[in-house]
Amino acid sequence: MKSSMSKKLFSRSQKVDDLGLISKLTGTRRIINRDGSFNISRRGLPYWESFSIYHWLISMSWIKFCFIILVSYLIINILFALLYYAGGEENFTGIVANNEFERFLNEFFFSTQTFTTVGYGRVSPAGIYSNVISSIESLAGLLSLAIATGLLYGRFSRPMAKILYSDKALIAPHLDGNAFQFRIANKRAGHQMVDVEVELMMSKAEAGKRSFYNLKLEYSKINFFTATWTVNHLINDASPLYGLSMNDFKKLDIEFLALIKGFDDTFAQVVHSRNSYIHDEISWGAKFVSLYSVDDEGNTSVDLNRISEVEKAELHSVN
Amino acid sequence: MKSSMSKKLFSRSQKVDDLGLISKLTGTRRIINRDGSFNISRRGLPYWESFSIYHWLISMSWIKFCFIILVSYLIINILFALLYYAGGEENFTGIVANNEFERFLNEFFFSTQTFTTVGYGRVSPAGIYSNVISSIESLAGLLSLAIATGLLYGRFSRPMAKILYSDKALIAPHLDGNAFQFRIANKRAGHQMVDVEVELMMSKAEAGKRSFYNLKLEYSKINFFTATWTVNHLINDASPLYGLSMNDFKKLDIEFLALIKGFDDTFAQVVHSRNSYIHDEISWGAKFVSLYSVDDEGNTSVDLNRISEVEKAELHSVN
Amino acid sequence: MKSSMSKKLFSRSQKVDDLGLISKLTGTRRIINRDGSFNISRRGLPYWESFSIYHWLISMSWIKFCFIILVSYLIINILFALLYYAGGEENFTGIVANNEFERFLNEFFFSTQTFTTVGYGRVSPAGIYSNVISSIESLAGLLSLAIATGLLYGRFSRPMAKILYSDKALIAPHLDGNAFQFRIANKRAGHQMVDVEVELMMSKAEAGKRSFYNLKLEYSKINFFTATWTVNHLINDASPLYGLSMNDFKKLDIEFLALIKGFDDTFAQVVHSRNSYIHDEISWGAKFVSLYSVDDEGNTSVDLNRISEVEKAELHSVN
Amino acid sequence: MKSSMSKKLFSRSQKVDDLGLISKLTGTRRIINRDGSFNISRRGLPYWESFSIYHWLISMSWIKFCFIILVSYLIINILFALLYYAGGEENFTGIVANNEFERFLNEFFFSTQTFTTVGYGRVSPAGIYSNVISSIESLAGLLSLAIATGLLYGRFSRPMAKILYSDKALIAPHLDGNAFQFRIANKRAGHQMVDVEVELMMSKAEAGKRSFYNLKLEYSKINFFTATWTVNHLINDASPLYGLSMNDFKKLDIEFLALIKGFDDTFAQVVHSRNSYIHDEISWGAKFVSLYSVDDEGNTSVDLNRISEVEKAELHSVN
Repeated sequence: MKSSMSKKLFSRSQKVDDLGLISKLTGTRRIINRDGSFNISRRGLPYWESFSIYHWLISMSWIKFCFIILVSYLIINILFALLYYAGGEENFTGIVANNEFERFLNEFFFSTQTFTTVGYGRVSPAGIYSNVISSIESLAGLLSLAIATGLLYGRFSRPMAKILYSDKALIAPHLDGNAFQFRIANKRAGHQMVDVEVELMMSKAEAGKRSFYNLKLEYSKINFFTATWTVNHLINDASPLYGLSMNDFKKLDIEFLALIKGFDDTFAQVVHSRNSYIHDEISWGAKFVSLYSVDDEGNTSVDLNRISEVEKAELHSVN
Repeated sequence: MKSSMSKKLFSRSQKVDDLGLISKLTGTRRIINRDGSFNISRRGLPYWESFSIYHWLISMSWIKFCFIILVSYLIINILFALLYYAGGEENFTGIVANNEFERFLNEFFFSTQTFTTVGYGRVSPAGIYSNVISSIESLAGLLSLAIATGLLYGRFSRPMAKILYSDKALIAPHLDGNAFQFRIANKRAGHQMVDVEVELMMSKAEAGKRSFYNLKLEYSKINFFTATWTVNHLINDASPLYGLSMNDFKKLDIEFLALIKGFDDTFAQVVHSRNSYIHDEISWGAKFVSLYSVDDEGNTSVDLNRISEVEKAELHSVN
Repeated sequence: MKSSMSKKLFSRSQKVDDLGLISKLTGTRRIINRDGSFNISRRGLPYWESFSIYHWLISMSWIKFCFIILVSYLIINILFALLYYAGGEENFTGIVANNEFERFLNEFFFSTQTFTTVGYGRVSPAGIYSNVISSIESLAGLLSLAIATGLLYGRFSRPMAKILYSDKALIAPHLDGNAFQFRIANKRAGHQMVDVEVELMMSKAEAGKRSFYNLKLEYSKINFFTATWTVNHLINDASPLYGLSMNDFKKLDIEFLALIKGFDDTFAQVVHSRNSYIHDEISWGAKFVSLYSVDDEGNTSVDLNRISEVEKAELHSVN
Repeated sequence: MKSSMSKKLFSRSQKVDDLGLISKLTGTRRIINRDGSFNISRRGLPYWESFSIYHWLISMSWIKFCFIILVSYLIINILFALLYYAGGEENFTGIVANNEFERFLNEFFFSTQTFTTVGYGRVSPAGIYSNVISSIESLAGLLSLAIATGLLYGRFSRPMAKILYSDKALIAPHLDGNAFQFRIANKRAGHQMVDVEVELMMSKAEAGKRSFYNLKLEYSKINFFTATWTVNHLINDASPLYGLSMNDFKKLDIEFLALIKGFDDTFAQVVHSRNSYIHDEISWGAKFVSLYSVDDEGNTSVDLNRISEVEKAELHSVN
């Protein structure tokens, strides 16, 4: 009787093989980094097949992005200035220059005024050659600035979950057994999240081969993610963690992979977040302290600074 | 027999603990405000970690938004005007000024003409210094106006459900029992909604601890949200509301949390809406009046002004 | 045995009450128009609460949209021209005018040049007053043109399914019984659709009250919507249509409501379409002809022009 | 006993008829091309009903797109130049021309300066006629460039899965039977995919009629698509492939249709990909080699260049 039940329960914490995950992976590095990126390098494809210029530009740092915009602006205008320069001085009216370099400078600034369509007109094209080039430049300017401004706004309004994870996961007493737990919070004030789901996987390495398990959660979905959520996997006899000790975790190179998705109110879109915990990021025999407090007027507040704060808690013995 | 059935039914109106919701919450304020925001304050994170400038700019009032645009425009142009001013008068042609302040004004307006790329050219940069600054300003103008215009259009076209809720929820007679009911309508003409779902939770506080329940709805999804929908939770013996009186609602500080989502035709996107009802927003022994009328030509119309209108209705006695 | 089975089957063609649909509706007009809009008028809300300017601008005809853009452009520039005119002639350089009207015209065209940021500079602001106004106008121009161009591109790239429906639905012989059928096709070449789902409801009016039923479909989802799909509801004893005659359809004012959604490859988004069939849009005893033909080289083609083409087909007798 | 079980299993690899798929299709071409497009031509609709200018512009090659932008730019400016030319020379100030053609050129370049709103002002409109035309042109320029830049950025940031498929699918030994397999990888570095699902259909032609089957997969969804995934359909007695030989595959003109969808991190959106395998793209008795390697420092890497690499593998005999 009991074994059939546990079999049934077990089927909820399902073993999964050879998926997108790397069952042959015997490396000692973690699978998912703490910033949510996958820890695996890719080879073999020609650079331009694999490289995504969009991803590169949308995810780089702001400083780097501004630098690239500025440098591109400089280079494009130097190129057009050289074209104007090649056309000769008679192609322009209004150039005031004592020497060739000053003429080049005049044409460089004329180029910037054309590219951005500011077009003061003190210097202006007088010949067919310079008129043709500047007609093209003003169009090119509008089009390439459209990409720059699109990226700029895309970066600014990019739908991303900013989930705060507790630094460590816990093996904590829960109900009449123990549970694997971690705590999350929504970092962004104002960005209210609803319909939030968590999927949790566990990976262990045995005999040079990695295997993966979907872990059953006490609750895998919540309607309202008001502030924090303690995600909970009960370690009963249906769990692949059942009977494993702290040492086993290390020996088996156990890693927990969490995938969180929810609807972000401000972006009006579904957002995702990923994280992982490896064996030395797991505290045994601890539980999270409450973050909530109520003041004299009945207002509730939550202290996100203490999201990783735990207190000692005796684990239930499992025989 | 009966108890097993009710147990089964009960499992549909499920108790849920310690989710994103605050089970330790003992505050006396409501959890969700009537505008759909969560009523909990957040502390602990450094301001810039938690603050979302995007959310701030996209959700503020239009008046405030326009004010911020104008003030930023003013400040940026003053800064650039100071830079031009620092460069000296010989850096420009076309300045007409009797004194230093008038020169500054000339340079300020030159700056606005550069920033917006209107570039009349009556005043125009003549030196390297002013040319460099104005090249940067016209680029900066294009880029920062891209964010402003992106936000402007983003605010204008932001996918948001405008759901009209009845002011009060009801405990109304329904079938051969009683039901918890509220009524919703789509405020926006033209924005037709399909695939609309409602999730309803109930929260009560007992012994200083809040617990939460998912309430089973008669219908939780409709294909066509033509005009109005009366959301219905039957208070049978499987409901956590079963046997509670009006006084119990107050004593237990009961709050109903509603989450509505649907596909908006005009935005071509899924939109969400939230609301809550607390004990003194619930009328006992009332039912909603019909909002529909048909004229002589067979045209049906709905009067949204009367969405909260109720009439007295004897509740069924529950023994 | 049989009744229990039919009961079970029946539960799939479920009766649904008082949802977004109007169970009290006794009007004689159809519920969903053939263009997919709902046929119900809304009253009671203050105009500006209910009116959605975004929906109005995004869904009006192109001619009307262009007209509104042009008229707004004209009005805005007349207003600014009046402001410039009020400032007096000495506020501008470059005005060439023999009379007051010509001066106004000069200032009107200066205004258009400022609003669009073209800024030729022949006429340019010389006083503080005109400079302040034109600084504001160029900013206002950029911002309001951002809304106009956003709407223009939004209209152009708006994710909408263009589903072609057969003019009539059929009661056709199918397997060893009869079925309610209609045929759909994807109008847009190139816009390939996958993961397409259909939901079909039926509404009938009896004793002054409308009731609604979800109809069970033979297939309600397809992975690939290559070209056409004949949607099929079997009229077995589990169907609410079972035993109804052509006359009953008319007497009961029966209407079929179809909701189609799928993922559009080009928009990279889910799109929806709606349609309805009322009793005189249903042909009894007919079936759709095949639209496919294969040429000598083995190429298959589909003739969408014949989507509504049917041929006579004897219905199965139901006893 | 056995037959009932196989019946139950069979129901998972379901036969599906007359859906969007063309059951009457007897053409000898494949249904889905290797680029994911459907291989069927459409007739009957009036050209402008069926043609989607948006799809055409968003999916054409970059070279063609740039060419169309340039040619449109040229044509529009020629048209406006002709309008200006028709107005006579006295409508402009600043024109420097020795003959009529040079005047036209002056007006052509004035037009480009107006359309792009660069507006140098050397040539500028002096009469009512030219002022009206140029007011319209600058507005038209802003609006039509909004579509061009919208499309440009839309093309650049278009959410598309770039899935790499193995050149061939395999019939490979798997567990204690055989399986239909193909391998996929995410081509784009940085674009991390989660919640990836595969749907696999099989189509065969018998007696001039095509039938379609949904094939049951060992795993049809993975949470993390780190690098590669070998999709697996077990050919047990519940599979419609059971008992078919390599020759049968050819005779029945069997085609496998794969639909892949997942959430792309960078686009923050769901993306789709399609592919198909026909009989001569299937290798019998082979299995995929592992692509993973671990270097001395424990770093794992995957060699996508070898995604199609297989080695011989004895199939299990099926009796």
